[in-house]
Amino acid sequence: MQLNQASWPEVEAYLKKSKGIIIPIGSVEQHGPNGLLGTDAICPEVIAKEAGDEAGFLVGPTFSVGSAQHHLGFTGSITLRPTTMIAALNDWIDSLHRHGFKRIFFLNGHGGNITTIDAAFVESYAAWSLDGEACPYKLKQTSWWMFDEVAQVCKELFPEGDGSHATASEVAVTYYAYPEAVKDVVMTPKTAPEGRFTDAADYRKKFPDGRIGSDPSQATPEKGKRIVEVAKKALIREVEAYFAS
Amino acid sequence: MQLNQASWPEVEAYLKKSKGIIIPIGSVEQHGPNGLLGTDAICPEVIAKEAGDEAGFLVGPTFSVGSAQHHLGFTGSITLRPTTMIAALNDWIDSLHRHGFKRIFFLNGHGGNITTIDAAFVESYAAWSLDGEACPYKLKQTSWWMFDEVAQVCKELFPEGDGSHATASEVAVTYYAYPEAVKDVVMTPKTAPEGRFTDAADYRKKFPDGRIGSDPSQATPEKGKRIVEVAKKALIREVEAYFAS
Amino acid sequence: MQLNQASWPEVEAYLKKSKGIIIPIGSVEQHGPNGLLGTDAICPEVIAKEAGDEAGFLVGPTFSVGSAQHHLGFTGSITLRPTTMIAALNDWIDSLHRHGFKRIFFLNGHGGNITTIDAAFVESYAAWSLDGEACPYKLKQTSWWMFDEVAQVCKELFPEGDGSHATASEVAVTYYAYPEAVKDVVMTPKTAPEGRFTDAADYRKKFPDGRIGSDPSQATPEKGKRIVEVAKKALIREVEAYFAS
Amino acid sequence: MQLNQASWPEVEAYLKKSKGIIIPIGSVEQHGPNGLLGTDAICPEVIAKEAGDEAGFLVGPTFSVGSAQHHLGFTGSITLRPTTMIAALNDWIDSLHRHGFKRIFFLNGHGGNITTIDAAFVESYAAWSLDGEACPYKLKQTSWWMFDEVAQVCKELFPEGDGSHATASEVAVTYYAYPEAVKDVVMTPKTAPEGRFTDAADYRKKFPDGRIGSDPSQATPEKGKRIVEVAKKALIREVEAYFAS
Amino acid sequence: MQLNQASWPEVEAYLKKSKGIIIPIGSVEQHGPNGLLGTDAICPEVIAKEAGDEAGFLVGPTFSVGSAQHHLGFTGSITLRPTTMIAALNDWIDSLHRHGFKRIFFLNGHGGNITTIDAAFVESYAAWSLDGEACPYKLKQTSWWMFDEVAQVCKELFPEGDGSHATASEVAVTYYAYPEAVKDVVMTPKTAPEGRFTDAADYRKKFPDGRIGSDPSQATPEKGKRIVEVAKKALIREVEAYFAS
Amino acid sequence: MQLNQASWPEVEAYLKKSKGIIIPIGSVEQHGPNGLLGTDAICPEVIAKEAGDEAGFLVGPTFSVGSAQHHLGFTGSITLRPTTMIAALNDWIDSLHRHGFKRIFFLNGHGGNITTIDAAFVESYAAWSLDGEACPYKLKQTSWWMFDEVAQVCKELFPEGDGSHATASEVAVTYYAYPEAVKDVVMTPKTAPEGRFTDAADYRKKFPDGRIGSDPSQATPEKGKRIVEVAKKALIREVEAYFAS
Ligand code: NI
Ligand code: NI
Ligand code: NI
Ligand code: NI
Ligand code: NI
Ligand code: NI
Repeated sequence: MQLNQASWPEVEAYLKKSKGIIIPIGSVEQHGPNGLLGTDAICPEVIAKEAGDEAGFLVGPTFSVGSAQHHLGFTGSITLRPTTMIAALNDWIDSLHRHGFKRIFFLNGHGGNITTIDAAFVESYAAWSLDGEACPYKLKQTSWWMFDEVAQVCKELFPEGDGSHATASEVAVTYYAYPEAVKDVVMTPKTAPEGRFTDAADYRKKFPDGRIGSDPSQATPEKGKRIVEVAKKALIREVEAYFAS
Repeated sequence: MQLNQASWPEVEAYLKKSKGIIIPIGSVEQHGPNGLLGTDAICPEVIAKEAGDEAGFLVGPTFSVGSAQHHLGFTGSITLRPTTMIAALNDWIDSLHRHGFKRIFFLNGHGGNITTIDAAFVESYAAWSLDGEACPYKLKQTSWWMFDEVAQVCKELFPEGDGSHATASEVAVTYYAYPEAVKDVVMTPKTAPEGRFTDAADYRKKFPDGRIGSDPSQATPEKGKRIVEVAKKALIREVEAYFAS
Repeated sequence: MQLNQASWPEVEAYLKKSKGIIIPIGSVEQHGPNGLLGTDAICPEVIAKEAGDEAGFLVGPTFSVGSAQHHLGFTGSITLRPTTMIAALNDWIDSLHRHGFKRIFFLNGHGGNITTIDAAFVESYAAWSLDGEACPYKLKQTSWWMFDEVAQVCKELFPEGDGSHATASEVAVTYYAYPEAVKDVVMTPKTAPEGRFTDAADYRKKFPDGRIGSDPSQATPEKGKRIVEVAKKALIREVEAYFAS
Repeated sequence: MQLNQASWPEVEAYLKKSKGIIIPIGSVEQHGPNGLLGTDAICPEVIAKEAGDEAGFLVGPTFSVGSAQHHLGFTGSITLRPTTMIAALNDWIDSLHRHGFKRIFFLNGHGGNITTIDAAFVESYAAWSLDGEACPYKLKQTSWWMFDEVAQVCKELFPEGDGSHATASEVAVTYYAYPEAVKDVVMTPKTAPEGRFTDAADYRKKFPDGRIGSDPSQATPEKGKRIVEVAKKALIREVEAYFAS
Repeated sequence: MQLNQASWPEVEAYLKKSKGIIIPIGSVEQHGPNGLLGTDAICPEVIAKEAGDEAGFLVGPTFSVGSAQHHLGFTGSITLRPTTMIAALNDWIDSLHRHGFKRIFFLNGHGGNITTIDAAFVESYAAWSLDGEACPYKLKQTSWWMFDEVAQVCKELFPEGDGSHATASEVAVTYYAYPEAVKDVVMTPKTAPEGRFTDAADYRKKFPDGRIGSDPSQATPEKGKRIVEVAKKALIREVEAYFAS
Repeated sequence: MQLNQASWPEVEAYLKKSKGIIIPIGSVEQHGPNGLLGTDAICPEVIAKEAGDEAGFLVGPTFSVGSAQHHLGFTGSITLRPTTMIAALNDWIDSLHRHGFKRIFFLNGHGGNITTIDAAFVESYAAWSLDGEACPYKLKQTSWWMFDEVAQVCKELFPEGDGSHATASEVAVTYYAYPEAVKDVVMTPKTAPEGRFTDAADYRKKFPDGRIGSDPSQATPEKGKRIVEVAKKALIREVEAYFAS
């Protein structure tokens, strides 16, 4: 069930059965020569949608722009400052709490979001902890590629060059979601360099075409479909456990 | 051209021809018994996408959650506080400015966003004005139903009961976009009451099913298609003029 | 009754009869070659004072500096950033709420304030809406020139060249309030250009002496007196209706 | 010269001769049974106006609402939170700096403002100090009752019961400024208790009618006139020295 | 009793007997050629520790970095912006309030902190005052050199050249605390100039080696010991009175 | 070299040789029945001090209060909200950048700080990335127990019951640092439960005496000494590599 395509009476009826919701959370940032700027939002959105459709979970709107300052050297990337992101996430959480949601599961699509999402959770809990009241809701984040079976299938599909940014697997998932957006680009070098980075200038200098450690020319819609199938099942299992916790 | 489905080299190439971008901006909030919670994001998103596809404009990601505190009495509505929204919009604007965009056109789908979007623009300009530097970019917002020809077609399609919230026309647009989400609901009363409101409690008391002045049971995908066609043309005209200004 | 010239026991006595207060709100910004920098604060202050004196309403202190970034190219203009203005207005509202005021009517003197005042109202309501409590007070703004009869008398007095900034009518009101400040300046061109603007640099370039569309050399204290008389009556009518709502 | 009654070309001309400006800064808060809520804004406003008229200094708009949380137990008092006040003062300072002012002299009327004004100055300087640039302006505050000769004349006029809040001397100054607002109230006890306070509840409990240590029934317009004369001279001397520093 | 070296059950036991805590608060900033950057944190920390050990008071962690923008022209100085400091102090206060502390006594070591600490207290009280609830705790600050007997002993030990920054007395206290850090430096000039300052550039220009009015080459561990003994007694007296108030 | 015990000329001399600094960062929070509230600040402080003394690195002041909302159910714990912590860390970073430091290495002592420290780094980099300038400094954090050899020695010393909060190893380090603070407490149960937590109420319910998975009664000063020796060497190696990077 997609919140954005539901009416309020439908969500009200859902809340009588379940107090849980999934929020896909991504980023709008460069994903190399053949990857989509929306990759990190598209991946969790697609996985959450398919899982929600199959298992009946409510899937909220995608929090699509996240923490991407390091990609600003590449055209089209958009970032929130961490303090803005913490404020926005807390407004979402406060709104969902207002309606009685008690389990909010963020399915994350961007490694750079993880720490700021956690800081936002702590900001939310801190208000209750300082007031001396028990917080009535629980917050959780999981990045889709961290499910064991997803990691495994990605390893199988891309034994080499999956990489850590603009990965073959995430590009594949977006190609599955938007086959019309498949881009045929020769990668030079075939596999991008590895490394760490700080700000946007540093990133651009070290990773000239935006990729880190990956050869995303291996990505196909079919491989993406496979990943989504596996991720969907993993997500359903995790969400069921979480909503029941 | 959809930024989310483009690669960074594609956006870089676009920027050589044009410094303009369209950002659909909406809200996630109740839209009455048969309207979608995502209505206000979906409408500008669909119109901008069709316009962008036809005229070649770059359409950025949708700023989907906006200013909706007055709808929080209805399940599923999500709001940003105005100060959060101003911060988030400024982060988007600063990111786009970083890449060299000079005309940022927000196509708005929610009346409740208008004043806060304007305050965000002023916040952005104020930084330049206080520094004594000329701001290198221009910001503009237009709500899709305010184009003259759109207002006219809506009047033709719904001579009575278009209303001012959960309007027949906006519901029609979303039914065109997501025909699988069409909801068949009898409206009681047929046309909802008119009026003004302050906070969520006040709104809920005055408008028990969420609608204001509308009978959205008149909405059909076909009527939505008609509205989108008209809006698309109007948007192309406005955007061409704006990007050339 | 002027709050600033009342004692606290007098205001306490007032609150037993009425829960309403008027707050004049303006801006300190250039008003062309013969207009006062304080114009936008002076106009609502004078109108509110005369209305309050006649009808017994409580008139609070003037919120005198507002949103004026676009005028910073002209010496003497002072602005708040919108986020600062939202914070300050919320502190005023919270203070008045603490005392039990339930209707706060902002009489506005500056077009540039309107959206940020509205955003401040939404910020205030949002706190209650997110908490799930009914907000115990109502907030309203009206700009003095928007009363129908005021618009009409201004049209009569200045059939041409009233304009939209440094208007003949607002300058006339200030000349009525401060006849010692009347400035005799020849306008070149007689009527200023019309147009739209973004930041301070853009404004200054388009409107070299600060006026927009006006010929304020037509302003006289007598015409100002006439406008204030009409505005006073309109305000009393509106305020009585609002406080009784 | 009153900024609010000047045109921008007049202020521009002034800036060719002087880079200094006086900003009266006050508070809107209870001042006991016969004192005006606006006392702390009125006093520096009157003194600054007379000094500016005599010596030709530019006097800006009054920053009228300040830091008054401890008075919120008395109807009509309005406060800014310190962080809001720091933001607002910095917006004023940034605006004045934009125009080229280099000496900004805040004439203060409220003891409770002093620390927050200083914190605002430090916030302003800190931006420059962290950037490693020399700040081009200087900021100063003085409370009008702290001039030696003012302290002396108050002591002469009110050898007993001048007190420390709702003082006989400040009430006298307001009676001079607004003789129509003189209030004839018997004080019980004649002289109010002394003491220290924390929040509004604590203040109200210790000082039931709002006064601290004072018998303001001694205040008359004539005594106020005398104080203003002395304060005006002291201010001119201080301002001349400061603007020349 | 040092909170940092206590366990939570020990602090819980303490709270059964006393609701008071001492927080040393300082700054990390240059203290001239022979003074330690940590001087302003070390002094109140040492005095509070000895007082706490002797009288059984609970001494919390040192708030070590404060308001020092004016010292940023000298290497090693670190500052908080006042608004950050207000936020941080309020988080500390809210945490201590959560545990039931009702008297929080800040023993201050830096003149530049005083106004911002006070603004932080007002920010804390304002939340209660605006809510209309009595604040359950009291906040107090005293700077260690302001105790009468401390002022007197410093005057005795350093009849000349104690000064107002990088004072002989504060350097002596740190030498007592860290005798291994004694620095033997010839002062040129022997006694530093006096004066006032604004930002870091202004400070550095006026006070080339960082001292104001002092000759700290007079400092010895023995003199520091003497000062600490006197300060400890004064603090115990003040704290006992405050905790009992 | 301890910044707090150095003079500014000494730090200036240091900066001629090295642009790097170590900042210990901790938390003030319960550490079970026999652990110190200051544990998380003490551990990195001691290790950094010994490493700095041996290898000549500059060690700055300890950022002692961090992100500890989940411990507020236990008396004495103090927290910063994440947004406050981000602001404070950025003020520290801006100050150090002002002096020319280019490598700032935070040695962390608290798992709960990690994500917020990272968000603070991103906030800092984002300012440069959005401005389009290369950030001139690099920021790094490492938690002392994450060095491989430290993990190994802790495993050797405490093959069972080291745990994940109030660990035997961290308590041992504090006992080495403050042998006078050793507390002899019988643990019930001997080894504390494992698990995850959200807010303070949740934490307290699951971990009644504050420990997670640990038996810190095994801690002794001698074992702490051993850990510090190993950690010191690891830190020197890491810091040398980092400062040279
Ligand atoms: Ni990605
Ligand atoms: Ni809508
Ligand atoms: Ni105007
Ligand atoms: Ni006063
Ligand atoms: Ni000092
Ligand atoms: Ni720990």
